[in-house]
Amino acid sequence: MEPLTTFADSSLSEIRRDLHRHAEAGWKEFRTSALLAAELESLGYEVFLGEETVDPDSRMGVPPSDEVAAARERAREEGAPEEYLERMDDVTGVIATRTFGDGPTIGLRTDIDALERQEAMDDDHRPATEGFASVHPGEMHACGHDAHAAIGLGVARAFAEGGFDGTLKLFFQSAEEGGRGGKPMAESGHLDDVDHLLAVHVGLDEPVGTVVSSYDGPLSNAKLDVAFSGAPAHAGGQPHAGRNALQAATAAIGNLYGIARHGDGATRINVGRVNADNAQNVICEEATMRVEVRGETHDLNEYMLGRAREIVDGAATMHDVTYETSLYGKTTTFENDDAVVGVVEAAANATDSVESVITKEFGGSEDASYLIRRVQERGGTATYLGVGGSNPDGHHTAYFDVDEACIDLGLDVITDAVRRLAES
Amino acid sequence: MEPLTTFADSSLSEIRRDLHRHAEAGWKEFRTSALLAAELESLGYEVFLGEETVDPDSRMGVPPSDEVAAARERAREEGAPEEYLERMDDVTGVIATRTFGDGPTIGLRTDIDALERQEAMDDDHRPATEGFASVHPGEMHACGHDAHAAIGLGVARAFAEGGFDGTLKLFFQSAEEGGRGGKPMAESGHLDDVDHLLAVHVGLDEPVGTVVSSYDGPLSNAKLDVAFSGAPAHAGGQPHAGRNALQAATAAIGNLYGIARHGDGATRINVGRVNADNAQNVICEEATMRVEVRGETHDLNEYMLGRAREIVDGAATMHDVTYETSLYGKTTTFENDDAVVGVVEAAANATDSVESVITKEFGGSEDASYLIRRVQERGGTATYLGVGGSNPDGHHTAYFDVDEACIDLGLDVITDAVRRLAES
Amino acid sequence: MEPLTTFADSSLSEIRRDLHRHAEAGWKEFRTSALLAAELESLGYEVFLGEETVDPDSRMGVPPSDEVAAARERAREEGAPEEYLERMDDVTGVIATRTFGDGPTIGLRTDIDALERQEAMDDDHRPATEGFASVHPGEMHACGHDAHAAIGLGVARAFAEGGFDGTLKLFFQSAEEGGRGGKPMAESGHLDDVDHLLAVHVGLDEPVGTVVSSYDGPLSNAKLDVAFSGAPAHAGGQPHAGRNALQAATAAIGNLYGIARHGDGATRINVGRVNADNAQNVICEEATMRVEVRGETHDLNEYMLGRAREIVDGAATMHDVTYETSLYGKTTTFENDDAVVGVVEAAANATDSVESVITKEFGGSEDASYLIRRVQERGGTATYLGVGGSNPDGHHTAYFDVDEACIDLGLDVITDAVRRLAES
Amino acid sequence: MEPLTTFADSSLSEIRRDLHRHAEAGWKEFRTSALLAAELESLGYEVFLGEETVDPDSRMGVPPSDEVAAARERAREEGAPEEYLERMDDVTGVIATRTFGDGPTIGLRTDIDALERQEAMDDDHRPATEGFASVHPGEMHACGHDAHAAIGLGVARAFAEGGFDGTLKLFFQSAEEGGRGGKPMAESGHLDDVDHLLAVHVGLDEPVGTVVSSYDGPLSNAKLDVAFSGAPAHAGGQPHAGRNALQAATAAIGNLYGIARHGDGATRINVGRVNADNAQNVICEEATMRVEVRGETHDLNEYMLGRAREIVDGAATMHDVTYETSLYGKTTTFENDDAVVGVVEAAANATDSVESVITKEFGGSEDASYLIRRVQERGGTATYLGVGGSNPDGHHTAYFDVDEACIDLGLDVITDAVRRLAES
Repeated sequence: MEPLTTFADSSLSEIRRDLHRHAEAGWKEFRTSALLAAELESLGYEVFLGEETVDPDSRMGVPPSDEVAAARERAREEGAPEEYLERMDDVTGVIATRTFGDGPTIGLRTDIDALERQEAMDDDHRPATEGFASVHPGEMHACGHDAHAAIGLGVARAFAEGGFDGTLKLFFQSAEEGGRGGKPMAESGHLDDVDHLLAVHVGLDEPVGTVVSSYDGPLSNAKLDVAFSGAPAHAGGQPHAGRNALQAATAAIGNLYGIARHGDGATRINVGRVNADNAQNVICEEATMRVEVRGETHDLNEYMLGRAREIVDGAATMHDVTYETSLYGKTTTFENDDAVVGVVEAAANATDSVESVITKEFGGSEDASYLIRRVQERGGTATYLGVGGSNPDGHHTAYFDVDEACIDLGLDVITDAVRRLAES
Repeated sequence: MEPLTTFADSSLSEIRRDLHRHAEAGWKEFRTSALLAAELESLGYEVFLGEETVDPDSRMGVPPSDEVAAARERAREEGAPEEYLERMDDVTGVIATRTFGDGPTIGLRTDIDALERQEAMDDDHRPATEGFASVHPGEMHACGHDAHAAIGLGVARAFAEGGFDGTLKLFFQSAEEGGRGGKPMAESGHLDDVDHLLAVHVGLDEPVGTVVSSYDGPLSNAKLDVAFSGAPAHAGGQPHAGRNALQAATAAIGNLYGIARHGDGATRINVGRVNADNAQNVICEEATMRVEVRGETHDLNEYMLGRAREIVDGAATMHDVTYETSLYGKTTTFENDDAVVGVVEAAANATDSVESVITKEFGGSEDASYLIRRVQERGGTATYLGVGGSNPDGHHTAYFDVDEACIDLGLDVITDAVRRLAES
Repeated sequence: MEPLTTFADSSLSEIRRDLHRHAEAGWKEFRTSALLAAELESLGYEVFLGEETVDPDSRMGVPPSDEVAAARERAREEGAPEEYLERMDDVTGVIATRTFGDGPTIGLRTDIDALERQEAMDDDHRPATEGFASVHPGEMHACGHDAHAAIGLGVARAFAEGGFDGTLKLFFQSAEEGGRGGKPMAESGHLDDVDHLLAVHVGLDEPVGTVVSSYDGPLSNAKLDVAFSGAPAHAGGQPHAGRNALQAATAAIGNLYGIARHGDGATRINVGRVNADNAQNVICEEATMRVEVRGETHDLNEYMLGRAREIVDGAATMHDVTYETSLYGKTTTFENDDAVVGVVEAAANATDSVESVITKEFGGSEDASYLIRRVQERGGTATYLGVGGSNPDGHHTAYFDVDEACIDLGLDVITDAVRRLAES
Repeated sequence: MEPLTTFADSSLSEIRRDLHRHAEAGWKEFRTSALLAAELESLGYEVFLGEETVDPDSRMGVPPSDEVAAARERAREEGAPEEYLERMDDVTGVIATRTFGDGPTIGLRTDIDALERQEAMDDDHRPATEGFASVHPGEMHACGHDAHAAIGLGVARAFAEGGFDGTLKLFFQSAEEGGRGGKPMAESGHLDDVDHLLAVHVGLDEPVGTVVSSYDGPLSNAKLDVAFSGAPAHAGGQPHAGRNALQAATAAIGNLYGIARHGDGATRINVGRVNADNAQNVICEEATMRVEVRGETHDLNEYMLGRAREIVDGAATMHDVTYETSLYGKTTTFENDDAVVGVVEAAANATDSVESVITKEFGGSEDASYLIRRVQERGGTATYLGVGGSNPDGHHTAYFDVDEACIDLGLDVITDAVRRLAES
């Protein structure tokens, strides 16, 4: 199976499999963005690319520049059209817009990044047996964003053939995993004139045929990378001369877990990664960790993040080391608008292949939250909807996959919902 | 046994027993100071009292003012002459000086405070069986400073009867226990013209008849009181609203013990006392602790003290609480001068009742260190000498006592040494 | 105002004031129990006293035996009838029962203990100005249990004059504060035949005239006392020879606050008290602390308690010290039965002096939970009801008081409810 | 420069460079051992190989078996004679012995392993400019063991041409770095009949021409690898269901640094490496760390190691995780025997190229300590001697090198010392 060099002649399923096979993790989606942009322009859409799609200063969790450059070069080798790579410079993501009538502006947000994890390669995994498992070690579409991109493109195609009374804006967002790309796209300004926004997710441990009209109640979340820097010293001869970054990290971690519970609702704290490597007989000079906090509300999450920062600061003071922090990612909470939820329900009920329409609670976090809030803050309405994908294993696992029937079903529901919203 | 109201008619042993019976802990030695001052003036000495004997700003570990006031009132009730109490105001300690000739100024430092501990009251303890155990619950002369005061007064009496070619300065120092009174007396200026200083200790687990001409090698030591102050909150309803002083103290303690060992020599750290009391269902608002550091040298002690302060500061930052620190006490190291040691040896060898002259290593700390260093810094010389006391149990224990024969022996050696120093 | 030596000739308000004046903290209610028992027997009730009212092995948070003995002696001196003191031995509490007819057994639980806190003695506090403030330093009826006892006695008097078709059981429970007395009374067996149980509380920051028919949703709670025992050693000379109880306590506390939040609901952790006192230059031999955990449900509380025990155990292993734990108190959750709540509402609505009938959420914990659950487990029903007391300051504060009008109002509602329950 | 396939035709300098170029880290010295064994057998020595040279159960810090297998395969590819690889199986190291006369048995210990570090490859480094820098990425002879092996082989050659009155035993020890190979070789039994043992080190920041007759006073040292294993759980949804290996490691580290200082002498503690990697939103399942302790004496080191084990055990209990520990390496202290030191001095003084004979203090640790102690325990004598190497940069750095003149100088001194010891 050769990499596609254009999406023009391929079905949505074929495109989904091509994207799955060339999975690109967050802020590395050069090939995905370039091929999508080329096809969208050929369909008559105005296309914004890369830095045009985000507030650059708000980007979080961007990989080191050499890794980004390597991903860009890989995209070139795997068929990404050069013209679009150049227009992107070193930032990924696409926004496409086309006006069909005077009616409202309807947005659709589909995220496009893969996860940083290895895909299963054995016979229990359909992408492996059918030849479209990721050819990129350590990168895998394990959360269905390949199908999201295909749905987004499908919607573009559908309206290119026959529009509606209004303007369509398609948001192909980078770096959803970790909550890194939502906030910068929300702050790009492109959402500000959107009257109604739909965001979509496939899978959800629901069968194909089930539509979730309102996927509710995500936790607010923030991930804080911390790097402590001290001074090395021989642990035998001069232990006092070191400034021990590991002791600082240890003091921080012990106290981070002890942040007081909050009387107003649920909070969470976790330290997922710690690394301190040095010659074994040297006082530790560098120690890094990733802290993750959550809150049932935005304020609760801010409480946790604020307390975490105080603790990191105190730990550094204790052990006379310096530190740097950077937000790896951040999401917030949102509430879907009943009116839009109702429209999605109506659209789903009107779609033949839909068997069941439900609402469902989120277990995790989503950075579409920032896009939804941006629209709502400016008077618009939104819902985060789901499309069952009959996924054989859980999201983020090595065996995640979706039944591609969910792509056409999602496409049908969304196009119908867009028309209804334009008429509402 | 009635409390003495004057020392004029009593022997040194009787005076020692009177002081033992009315033991006064550090910065509470009002009766001791007043009776000594009265007697010293009657012997022709110029007397400095209370604030005149110290740099007031350097006093450490001073008890709460109500306790000091109560001790002063108690002294009045137990026969301390009112005139001297008034001259002292609320600070204890006596310095007495008299010039007998043109020769050098010789100083003698004797400390006068008792310990804060309960004395044994049973038949195994001679002060109990012979009726001079402390009548003050929780205060006891368990380190022989009652005998030191008697020796100091004996030296004053001896030279009042027949002086030497020089000036005598007697330092009756308060609050040696904990290392609280030495530094402020050193910084009073009274030491600055002392040519030769003798400091004396009795007991030392040596028999009467043994003289220690050089008691060597004390550890440097500092005691830091820390009080963390946060904010209370109901632990069930509003845990996040508290600022937890106990968590700060806990973070501090855990990291204090982890201060890096020093490549240049032995250091020590201990947290001897922690108290956090509050209603059981409230986030802890106040927590206090006493930190003790030591070092083989003055610099090693300063390293420990500096690191301890950083850790306390960081712990407070971590938990968003405030804190106050105060030095409860501090001692330093010193080295005795060979010349003075030699003079003491000669004096001891010339004293009939002396059977053995040795040198000995300190196990602990002494704030005479500051007086000795002050004299040496200005070109003088000094030694810290010991007089065996046949103490039946260890210093600081409930059964500590000395054979009063050590008083006269110490007196003889010291007066002889003073004369030799004046002539040297 | 002389202490009463019998309740026979006094009004409920007078009795409440006598109890307030002679406040007895948990497991020390000897005078309260003896005077109540005497009056209840004279009213024709069968009375159970002391050990007969509890499962002795389940008692928690019992003070040291010398304190209990002193409280018993104090009760004697303050007029408690000797006969009843003897029958009680060293355990407090009263259960009184009388059968008036063949109908159901109706229970009423009123707790009788004071808090360990000092009462305000100034002119802003009515008990002080009117002469019935507690004469026992550090003990105060700051939660209205004096009024509870009066209401219970009032109910006994009311039915002694004219019963109902059933059996009345009155539970005058000791040591509710801290959750120490509920579980042992529940496990005494006396609850097992109760068909309907009422528990009552006054005050609740509601005005007199308001009845709370269902006081709901207490947190489950446990208080764990922990004592670590190590070995002392001189912190300068032999630090390695100590086994440091304070380091163990510190390790425990730091990690207790870090017990993982629970996905199923709210949990709480607090360490309210820590004490480690020793000579300042000695490695700490003893350290004690009181840990308090809570859970939104019984299981969540058990999760916290179990994790706390593991952490204490590990901390002791870490620092090679031993430890002992004892439950100072424990409460659980309960749900009031709608049927009984409805009866109380009906009775309240039928009572002239009642102006408002509401339900209210608990903020804290209650060991009536164990009595309520015991009754429910055996097929009975229950409610925890409240009677507004116009308390001028919050429960547990030094200025807590109630308007005694709440006593008669509570009495009226409860007697009516008992009759309705007997007929239901 | 082709890899040698036999040492028969090469000079010691050539052999040293060949070994340097094919540096093999601890327990991977297959090529080194095989080539040495072949040459030693051809010189008439009886050769013990691999498992014959150690007590297999005492080996520490052995790499994973796949890494060992890969090193063995690499050795084959780089010219190690197959016959000797087979005789070694999967353990490295060589002992060679030959009896020349009836006199005493003289041992020489030379270690043969490289370090796990990258060698400098730039023009400032002679091995790079002259083409003998290590061709194995991440492995480098940065401590001169290549020269040690050459000296050992040179001694074998020298006596093969003309023996002495006694037996020669040559110990080519594996895995000295980290202190992993000394103890198992000591416990092989091969040392038990050695009358006099010499161990040799080159470099030492001394110029060629300087001989250190007694390299003294190493610290006792132990390295403990610890792996905590818990259970993962989603940090948002089920934090309570995890068993947090990182919290255990954190609790351990915080308390490890707090191990009490020892009154008998200097101790050290360091945690050099910590790794806990998992998906960022998952409670940490695995955490590993390397703990290093030291003591001025063997007993002080054992104290630290024992306390470290208790703390690790308690930390695991605290957080309900399991753990495994393994000693990565261990060294002890030793004292050189004056008689042997004197012989080395005499030999050095008799050697023309020697300009200076000194003694020197160790800064670090050495597992020759176990071999020296083994010999001494059985009545033999030993010294650890040094040969200046004019090393341009410090031991263990990327630019370490030695002037090969030290090989012949060392050879001369050692052969002379062996003859003198045989005659003594």
